[in-house]
Amino acid sequence: MKRILIATTNKGKLREFRDLLSGLNIEVLSLEDMENKIEVEEDKETFLENAIKKAKEYAKFYNMPVIAEDAGLEVQELNGYPGVYSARFYEIDFGGKEDITENKDKANIKKLLRLLQGKENRDARYVSVVVFYNPEDFGIWTEGFCYGKIAEKPIGEGGFGYDPIFIPQGYDKTMAQLSPEEKNKISHRGIAVRKLINILEKVIH
Amino acid sequence: MKRILIATTNKGKLREFRDLLSGLNIEVLSLEDMENKIEVEEDKETFLENAIKKAKEYAKFYNMPVIAEDAGLEVQELNGYPGVYSARFYEIDFGGKEDITENKDKANIKKLLRLLQGKENRDARYVSVVVFYNPEDFGIWTEGFCYGKIAEKPIGEGGFGYDPIFIPQGYDKTMAQLSPEEKNKISHRGIAVRKLINILEKVIH
Repeated sequence: MKRILIATTNKGKLREFRDLLSGLNIEVLSLEDMENKIEVEEDKETFLENAIKKAKEYAKFYNMPVIAEDAGLEVQELNGYPGVYSARFYEIDFGGKEDITENKDKANIKKLLRLLQGKENRDARYVSVVVFYNPEDFGIWTEGFCYGKIAEKPIGEGGFGYDPIFIPQGYDKTMAQLSPEEKNKISHRGIAVRKLINILEKVIH
Repeated sequence: MKRILIATTNKGKLREFRDLLSGLNIEVLSLEDMENKIEVEEDKETFLENAIKKAKEYAKFYNMPVIAEDAGLEVQELNGYPGVYSARFYEIDFGGKEDITENKDKANIKKLLRLLQGKENRDARYVSVVVFYNPEDFGIWTEGFCYGKIAEKPIGEGGFGYDPIFIPQGYDKTMAQLSPEEKNKISHRGIAVRKLINILEKVIH
């Protein structure tokens, strides 16, 4: 059976990946299964460049096929911010810094709501770029988008990241109010991962 | 029939791509077939980043699937140089600049031979990274390598680039002395493009 390493330390993402990949006949490893650890900095300008950087560095270090992802929220009124800075939006200069009171997700959400206070245009999209890389051979990337609006205040306990303030198009609740199955059906990550699986099923034997 | 744009202005590369892709049931367009022109600068640090940048920018501008490539020569004694600078090695600071007397290929070769004068280690490899991108959907990249040695002086009239001074492993002549068919069989580009075709045949319908 093929073994693939999912290169994420984000427990929420890992859970979603395991669900989505469960139909493929492969053994899914996570970074927690690996004895030796390396850190890969996500310092590139695009989701794709970050995801490829992670996939290539982990694949080289562990000498096995890797799936890596970079994802984020692009808010129209903020010219696409937080974008690649989504995970650490609270601490970047753009729009002023925010203290962590409970956790990073909450600090990020607090800052975003502050910047959108009184703004009419609350259009946003979640973007996911998922990369598969087999060392010194080939790579595949897929893109998934989920369009929606930013809520006035956080609602719901599911998901992670900006889910409590992201209302997907056609819904009257936030992403954090959806069940994991509902979220995977419409989410940027679900869309990108299903596209990848669709290709991998044809290419990997 | 599917249409794919080959995003290169290098006539040598375009000829090789057309030969290699002739077995696929697709219409191959080149940048010369396009009425409106854009320039994409290859200013990234890796072959993959350059090839992806080209593929994405052309795909967005022309709104169609694109194949782009970046390739170069990595010389062990020069820590991998000329690498991503292969096409304009003559004019970069590393190792001193070289005047163009006849053409860029000859100026690049002259500089490389000057830097390797009297050196014992003449090991090198050609690297090709080929990218296919279907806008807002998915991308594939493949890697091809051709290992060899740098000759003492240029021989042969075929190919382009560093071919007159590149002796592939297992051969006693330079890449520029091979027929186009022989070169495609062993070349970095031939290997990467065949891998890509093998995947595209399964994925594109």
